[in-house]
Amino acid sequence: MNYTLKYVPEREAKPREKGITMVMDKGLSVNEIENFLSVSGNHTDLVKLGWATSFVTPNLQDKLRVYREAGIPVYFGGTLFEAFIIRGQFEDYQRLLDRYGMEYAEVSDGSITIPHDIKCEFIRKLKGQVTVISEVGSKDDTVIIPPYKWIELMQAEIDAGSWKVIAEARESGNVGLFRGNGEVRSGLVEEILTKIPQESIIWEAPQKSQQVWFVKLLGANVNLGNIAPAEVIPLETVRLGLRGDTFNHFLKDFDIPVM
Amino acid sequence: MNYTLKYVPEREAKPREKGITMVMDKGLSVNEIENFLSVSGNHTDLVKLGWATSFVTPNLQDKLRVYREAGIPVYFGGTLFEAFIIRGQFEDYQRLLDRYGMEYAEVSDGSITIPHDIKCEFIRKLKGQVTVISEVGSKDDTVIIPPYKWIELMQAEIDAGSWKVIAEARESGNVGLFRGNGEVRSGLVEEILTKIPQESIIWEAPQKSQQVWFVKLLGANVNLGNIAPAEVIPLETVRLGLRGDTFNHFLKDFDIPVM
Amino acid sequence: MNYTLKYVPEREAKPREKGITMVMDKGLSVNEIENFLSVSGNHTDLVKLGWATSFVTPNLQDKLRVYREAGIPVYFGGTLFEAFIIRGQFEDYQRLLDRYGMEYAEVSDGSITIPHDIKCEFIRKLKGQVTVISEVGSKDDTVIIPPYKWIELMQAEIDAGSWKVIAEARESGNVGLFRGNGEVRSGLVEEILTKIPQESIIWEAPQKSQQVWFVKLLGANVNLGNIAPAEVIPLETVRLGLRGDTFNHFLKDFDIPVM
Repeated sequence: MNYTLKYVPEREAKPREKGITMVMDKGLSVNEIENFLSVSGNHTDLVKLGWATSFVTPNLQDKLRVYREAGIPVYFGGTLFEAFIIRGQFEDYQRLLDRYGMEYAEVSDGSITIPHDIKCEFIRKLKGQVTVISEVGSKDDTVIIPPYKWIELMQAEIDAGSWKVIAEARESGNVGLFRGNGEVRSGLVEEILTKIPQESIIWEAPQKSQQVWFVKLLGANVNLGNIAPAEVIPLETVRLGLRGDTFNHFLKDFDIPVM
Repeated sequence: MNYTLKYVPEREAKPREKGITMVMDKGLSVNEIENFLSVSGNHTDLVKLGWATSFVTPNLQDKLRVYREAGIPVYFGGTLFEAFIIRGQFEDYQRLLDRYGMEYAEVSDGSITIPHDIKCEFIRKLKGQVTVISEVGSKDDTVIIPPYKWIELMQAEIDAGSWKVIAEARESGNVGLFRGNGEVRSGLVEEILTKIPQESIIWEAPQKSQQVWFVKLLGANVNLGNIAPAEVIPLETVRLGLRGDTFNHFLKDFDIPVM
Repeated sequence: MNYTLKYVPEREAKPREKGITMVMDKGLSVNEIENFLSVSGNHTDLVKLGWATSFVTPNLQDKLRVYREAGIPVYFGGTLFEAFIIRGQFEDYQRLLDRYGMEYAEVSDGSITIPHDIKCEFIRKLKGQVTVISEVGSKDDTVIIPPYKWIELMQAEIDAGSWKVIAEARESGNVGLFRGNGEVRSGLVEEILTKIPQESIIWEAPQKSQQVWFVKLLGANVNLGNIAPAEVIPLETVRLGLRGDTFNHFLKDFDIPVM
């Protein structure tokens, strides 16, 4: 921190198991990554190369190198996994992970339908090769999964070997966890948390109002994902109660009278 | 492509007559252009310096040089043409095109009203000097042009010498082709396509939902315009069926059962 | 300007007392600032490091240096002032301003409630140290301040020594001056202007429609704030009547018949 301010909530230090900020890179250039990391590297825990953008970015090896030199784990979006699966190319996907030296991989079923035991089987197969992050929730806004089912799916994927489970919201933040207008399905989140420990979940929350909602519910060290690169610094201030939206929220923890 | 994935629709190669991505630069710096091109250069066919932004950017010669060195045609937005016309400075505009070595120019009437035979006369005059792109549609959201009129205007401009006609939507995507809420006037598009070949049209489609709609209707190699620089990579994945929105759309062409 | 176009409204030259563009930097890297200034430096009068983002950006000294070398005054957002005040650290804040060589400071009460005479006392104390900009309006969208009260507060702050008063709108443009949907409270603005000279006010107007509204009401040289870095060039064209939105607005001043 550049200067001292009293009564600011404490943040976990890297490598973090909680308080994770997962950033979505949807096509940054090498220089743009360097610019981003020079400001936000210390506040960034994971980077996802969004869906199958890695297929069409010409500088993939360079991008991966820059993230690795900064010590930040990077992985391909789940839609790429699904694109290989639906084409019957799972082994090609495993070779791809090896060829690029990936240490993390996402297993998801947001665009395809896989029987859940088969999805868990993919998690078990991949966890020998990489750290697996799996995602629950559909990208289809007409699919509504009831809370007990979210819990069942998350628990089975953790049992199969997922390091964290991601709760789906897309880049736009209007499906899965959220209603079409971006509002949080708060009852769903609260019910999930009665059964699954919050350290095991990364909540996709691309919109500021969504980030604010989660920080107010779960504190500075909630795991949040699909954060745009330019929004990492703003999010960090939301976590610390240093933006209007959460300014007064943390003060009561320190018995500071709100003026 | 960085790796092999089966059953991905084929994209036209550069220089493209169809499958064009036209990007809007509304004030990038030289370094930002270099960053952009290092990632998206191969997926970008045309760059428009949005409306009259070229009037106030201090680095115009340098910007033009960087685009040219990358082999990407660049042109001034139509509003600049209109600004010269309404001031009675058409010959100044022609001199301006020469002075900056422009090879393309846009002729439009989005902010002014010109009798259509005069607009076509401008197209005829300019086509001896540059490749002309002309634009149909008003920037005024209260002006609704009926489909038969769009067809008549487009055909007359092609006959006058336009290389392509652009269907207006603005940077925001809420006029012309689209309703105020960004929804496509689908009947209008379908009626235009009964008379004008799709290769001759560039559809302005700045919003993702609009791009998805056109890719679903007209395939991977539809001509799309007013794409923000950071959205070229995402658009390329939409064209290839490698983003959630078009993931299943292309699979049926390859007889892949949707799981 | 890169070329000559007749009948363009005249802009004030730097250093400007009116026609100010105040930009919000919410976490740019040093290179991103350099890119931004290479294009928009001449159109930028003031830069605010948004709210308390300066607390978590690791490159603060470098950022300040780059802005200063470009001759552009920079100041910390008012929320940082408020964070120090509510913690009883006003003297720490004064030392902070000294340590970073700040020449401007913002005094606001958007997230906290301070009796207005105490706010004015802070203005008086700080004006011996820096040029003070003060802000009127709440970040809380449920707080509606009536027009006579805006006038009273602004006048008292100017009397206490504020160089300019800022009318609050946040980064999003949906509180204070604006309704929740971003629409201007036009009656409020017009009533304020019956009593406070427009040169003394910087209107926060992050959305394009808001900028257009103010330019149409108050002309090319209205003071506008919370402009995103990438929107400075577009705003400059709006000020000059060279974007669709204000294209015809200025022509009548020059007796050019709108075609």
